[in-house]
Amino acid sequence: MRAAVVDAVNAPWRVREVDTPRPGPGEVLIRVHASGVCHNDVLVSRGVFPFPQLDPVVIGHEPAGEVVEVGAGVTTRQVGDRVGATWVQGTCGRCEHCRRDPGLTGRAATSCPGVRMTGLNAPGGHAEYVAVSAASTVLLPEALGYEAAAPMLCAGYTAWSALRTANPRPHERVAVLGIGGLGHLAVQFSRACGFDTVAVTRTPDKHELARKLGADEVVGDGAALRAAGGADVILVTGTSYAAATDALAGLRPRGRMVLAGIDPGGTLAIGPTFPIWSRGQQILGATHLGLDRLGEALDLAAGGAVTPMVETFDADRADEVVRRVERNEVRFRAVLRF
Amino acid sequence: MRAAVVDAVNAPWRVREVDTPRPGPGEVLIRVHASGVCHNDVLVSRGVFPFPQLDPVVIGHEPAGEVVEVGAGVTTRQVGDRVGATWVQGTCGRCEHCRRDPGLTGRAATSCPGVRMTGLNAPGGHAEYVAVSAASTVLLPEALGYEAAAPMLCAGYTAWSALRTANPRPHERVAVLGIGGLGHLAVQFSRACGFDTVAVTRTPDKHELARKLGADEVVGDGAALRAAGGADVILVTGTSYAAATDALAGLRPRGRMVLAGIDPGGTLAIGPTFPIWSRGQQILGATHLGLDRLGEALDLAAGGAVTPMVETFDADRADEVVRRVERNEVRFRAVLRF
Amino acid sequence: MRAAVVDAVNAPWRVREVDTPRPGPGEVLIRVHASGVCHNDVLVSRGVFPFPQLDPVVIGHEPAGEVVEVGAGVTTRQVGDRVGATWVQGTCGRCEHCRRDPGLTGRAATSCPGVRMTGLNAPGGHAEYVAVSAASTVLLPEALGYEAAAPMLCAGYTAWSALRTANPRPHERVAVLGIGGLGHLAVQFSRACGFDTVAVTRTPDKHELARKLGADEVVGDGAALRAAGGADVILVTGTSYAAATDALAGLRPRGRMVLAGIDPGGTLAIGPTFPIWSRGQQILGATHLGLDRLGEALDLAAGGAVTPMVETFDADRADEVVRRVERNEVRFRAVLRF
Amino acid sequence: MRAAVVDAVNAPWRVREVDTPRPGPGEVLIRVHASGVCHNDVLVSRGVFPFPQLDPVVIGHEPAGEVVEVGAGVTTRQVGDRVGATWVQGTCGRCEHCRRDPGLTGRAATSCPGVRMTGLNAPGGHAEYVAVSAASTVLLPEALGYEAAAPMLCAGYTAWSALRTANPRPHERVAVLGIGGLGHLAVQFSRACGFDTVAVTRTPDKHELARKLGADEVVGDGAALRAAGGADVILVTGTSYAAATDALAGLRPRGRMVLAGIDPGGTLAIGPTFPIWSRGQQILGATHLGLDRLGEALDLAAGGAVTPMVETFDADRADEVVRRVERNEVRFRAVLRF
Repeated sequence: MRAAVVDAVNAPWRVREVDTPRPGPGEVLIRVHASGVCHNDVLVSRGVFPFPQLDPVVIGHEPAGEVVEVGAGVTTRQVGDRVGATWVQGTCGRCEHCRRDPGLTGRAATSCPGVRMTGLNAPGGHAEYVAVSAASTVLLPEALGYEAAAPMLCAGYTAWSALRTANPRPHERVAVLGIGGLGHLAVQFSRACGFDTVAVTRTPDKHELARKLGADEVVGDGAALRAAGGADVILVTGTSYAAATDALAGLRPRGRMVLAGIDPGGTLAIGPTFPIWSRGQQILGATHLGLDRLGEALDLAAGGAVTPMVETFDADRADEVVRRVERNEVRFRAVLRF
Repeated sequence: MRAAVVDAVNAPWRVREVDTPRPGPGEVLIRVHASGVCHNDVLVSRGVFPFPQLDPVVIGHEPAGEVVEVGAGVTTRQVGDRVGATWVQGTCGRCEHCRRDPGLTGRAATSCPGVRMTGLNAPGGHAEYVAVSAASTVLLPEALGYEAAAPMLCAGYTAWSALRTANPRPHERVAVLGIGGLGHLAVQFSRACGFDTVAVTRTPDKHELARKLGADEVVGDGAALRAAGGADVILVTGTSYAAATDALAGLRPRGRMVLAGIDPGGTLAIGPTFPIWSRGQQILGATHLGLDRLGEALDLAAGGAVTPMVETFDADRADEVVRRVERNEVRFRAVLRF
Repeated sequence: MRAAVVDAVNAPWRVREVDTPRPGPGEVLIRVHASGVCHNDVLVSRGVFPFPQLDPVVIGHEPAGEVVEVGAGVTTRQVGDRVGATWVQGTCGRCEHCRRDPGLTGRAATSCPGVRMTGLNAPGGHAEYVAVSAASTVLLPEALGYEAAAPMLCAGYTAWSALRTANPRPHERVAVLGIGGLGHLAVQFSRACGFDTVAVTRTPDKHELARKLGADEVVGDGAALRAAGGADVILVTGTSYAAATDALAGLRPRGRMVLAGIDPGGTLAIGPTFPIWSRGQQILGATHLGLDRLGEALDLAAGGAVTPMVETFDADRADEVVRRVERNEVRFRAVLRF
Repeated sequence: MRAAVVDAVNAPWRVREVDTPRPGPGEVLIRVHASGVCHNDVLVSRGVFPFPQLDPVVIGHEPAGEVVEVGAGVTTRQVGDRVGATWVQGTCGRCEHCRRDPGLTGRAATSCPGVRMTGLNAPGGHAEYVAVSAASTVLLPEALGYEAAAPMLCAGYTAWSALRTANPRPHERVAVLGIGGLGHLAVQFSRACGFDTVAVTRTPDKHELARKLGADEVVGDGAALRAAGGADVILVTGTSYAAATDALAGLRPRGRMVLAGIDPGGTLAIGPTFPIWSRGQQILGATHLGLDRLGEALDLAAGGAVTPMVETFDADRADEVVRRVERNEVRFRAVLRF
């Protein structure tokens, strides 16, 4: 099969022939139709995150496609199923974390030393075929095309998990910090749930777009958010914790800031200027909340309440695409077609 | 292997030779050392609950033992593991419930039409060997013997799930209605968590026992509970909804009554006498809350905070045991040894 | 001043001159502009609920008007404030309930034997003036007229509290049982929060209205609700627990039924037909959740997301109005103007 | 009456005669028997926190004593009541915060610009008499002496609120960072609720004491906490956010760190080293959670489950006491007797 292979840290992504995988027991083989390119893919291939010990190195954790073969013991998926796959395929089942909080989400998924992750320590989705555990797949709604589904499998899943972690109550106001791969979906999710929604972005040419996505208001930073009345929830979807620290100025008393994006170098500083203790405020880390939550996100997308903005590329352009993602030139998710 | 076989509704339980199962993909084969006899086993074999379409019919969903073989694709369990198995082995993964709330707990487990349940539509644990999905097993703590572990796999799991469903807050008072298979564990769980605990039982000769189990107070009915100050939480562990209706008299404002036991015929009546609306009270159904919760229950048992009261019998006495369970003569859980 | 006086159980409501009250310490005097007629007012004046020990007996707990005088020590309200008043004016502060859960909501408000309630054991709002504790008043949003505000002070407050008690999560489906004083608001609240909303009513001529109020679907009973896919939340807003029992058929696994309305005689029966234990379902009693929640309801009404349907009458027609309320002829809230 | 007066920033505390206050409407006059000295009192009198605009300046917000007079309109308190008073006496009732979240706790209490606070912008408790709003008082349990009650009114209230904010579930492990005024109570609260409790203190001579207070284990810093298995909850009760940052190393996946103490200068840094996002961890600010929570704390103290360690001084030694508190020489709460 053809796959986008990264031969070494910082090496170009090359699409070439590699062996087609076969599904083991409990696995399904997916003919990948669309594979989303996450910013983390860039960090992995550049060595910021640990470089995969795979041969060949195929990255990618947003594959959407059709089941073409099922491994021994699989009863939940059938040939012909339209599916997407999520990041975590399985955990060791034996460590302290797995014993306390088993399953594909929760403590085990984020902390088990033996966790098996698509595109990191297991072959990834930027290929014609990928074999993954059936348990890590979801059935895609009929109305949702592969190209729209792919970004939902990590970006959309993360954005929705962040909103659900904040647990906004009816009548609360939600701010989304950063209008990018996660943020453009978070704005739509928030609006779809009826929340008064504020986009916070320092990029002036995203203001109009943010409104089109459903933002009731758009501001530039934490001070402006505060001046606009603040927010009960701030979803940090970008990659700058400095911006998150700044945004704390706009967090209302009893408000919750959710960290969904990753800043590989920055620091969120909680101190005398923003005394979260006296205001009963909270800083909440968010990860994928479980396949039930992913199902909700997919349904919202299938129903048209949320539409990922996608730029689709033929797989042969993979290396060009990665560079564009690296330079934040894609609005807002690149999807490779194999 | 030897197994306790029920040839027809109301037939005696006969221990005889049957084929030894082999583990399929994703399954483990357990050499059963202890198998708890749940009251539901009686209801199943008497036809009150649907009689299993199995050949031979082997009931039982509290098996504890040693893994002696693992099926294809199993990475989470090894030969030699000391394990217990829970009721639900798997769900269809495709129905509405599985799509909204997948996994071995939650909506899917209780509502999926294709759910596979040990001892109901899959071979049960009252046998020398049982093959179950690895995902339905838990590793047993070293300090917990098989005979103590068995009753924790359903009775203890249910009692603990009921307490966790009530979500008692520090400083609240917990009442346990019924001192039997579930109730004698619920009292201990409540005490282990530091709650002021009241046992409610109409059986005078259980009063002293309830105190030994840790009850701070013992009363006979709802009126007596009310006279004693009421409770914030009432765990209904017995099989009489009439008794539960009576106990509502002792539920404090903002209190929660949890239904953990099953009354195959009775009705809980909420009406003008107990206006739960005006008091902000709640009636909560409780089922197994997940393997993380079961792990907590097992840890509490392994640490000595909770000790199941068990009567152990050689498997050959299975039919006698079932009759004793039927007559509520066992204190409080019969365990068969194979 | 003029007031609607009820001289005895079942006596006609007569509007006549009585002494104008003066505000005591901590109280405000309200010039009532609109006074909502709750169905409970009927039950009180007919002796179904305890008849007030007042002289004269003035009922009514939905007064909206203008503050014209403030008592000693009042700093939170000023002459000229547009306010509404809620049911509970104060509690004893000394009983067990007040010590455990003080304040104007919570355990104390529903269970304190010394609770002071407008229109029950304290003079009510069907009068030109009423004196109430400042703490039981809320400032009305400018955009909300008195006639629209009045029904929000109990009916709207209750409906919103019911929805908040159910704590519906994004993407869940909400059913409203009964389209009346509470229900017509509950449908609007649910839609305003983005929930897929089903109206359940046995009255065919309310079907079109329910859709106009925002219901996505309208069904006739529990079986029809089940056939339509069921609901995660059922808000029981009517006065028939028999209907509520029937509606349980349409409650999804893990669903919550909230009892907000009062059935003075009926019984909600939970039993073998609807095994809430196995499905992890819940029955939740709901009362007024606090002034912060009322403030949310008022804001939603002021913003136009929710519009109470009101029939306004001159106070002189009070007795006629009560009879119409008694016969369920009002759609959906009668308001008296003084 | 005699009172401890602070004539200017950094001036010595002098006990001298001042006018005895009279209770206004809604207020009670308390004959103070014991008045706790909070570390914040030092910060206020040293000008780190805003210096009170009072004449004379009397600080103190932990007064416990007897009601000797009640103001107009007070029905909840009587002459002879044994009471304590909490920090917040009332809010404006009109600002955005008061409209959204009224009451003596919640958003209003921490954010209302017109909040009235005992010992800050209203006369404080270090005096023979203090007049406060009846609503800010609690009835003291009979079994709880004034000297033990005083530290519960802020230190104990705060520590208990922190534990409740963390919402530890049965079977979780709680670490208490800092063994001082708050921390020595937090350890006891945690044990009283049955949680496995770890004390974290850099002061070696507090190790034995921490064990006596109920700690199951004592460690020196975050690395040691991690080596000891980590904790699900870390209660930051000291005044160093640097220590809190260090302690993050010991926070388990899905764990919650609660900020209860105040660091007037330091910063809690959340960054790449402690990626709370990937572990689903939370940082929670905690303030007084409400009089119902305070009532729980008082009950636990009255029942003997929690015992404040108090050093009692005659009021004449006020200035000496403040210096000792400033030098952290008091174990663990100084109480002045008037």
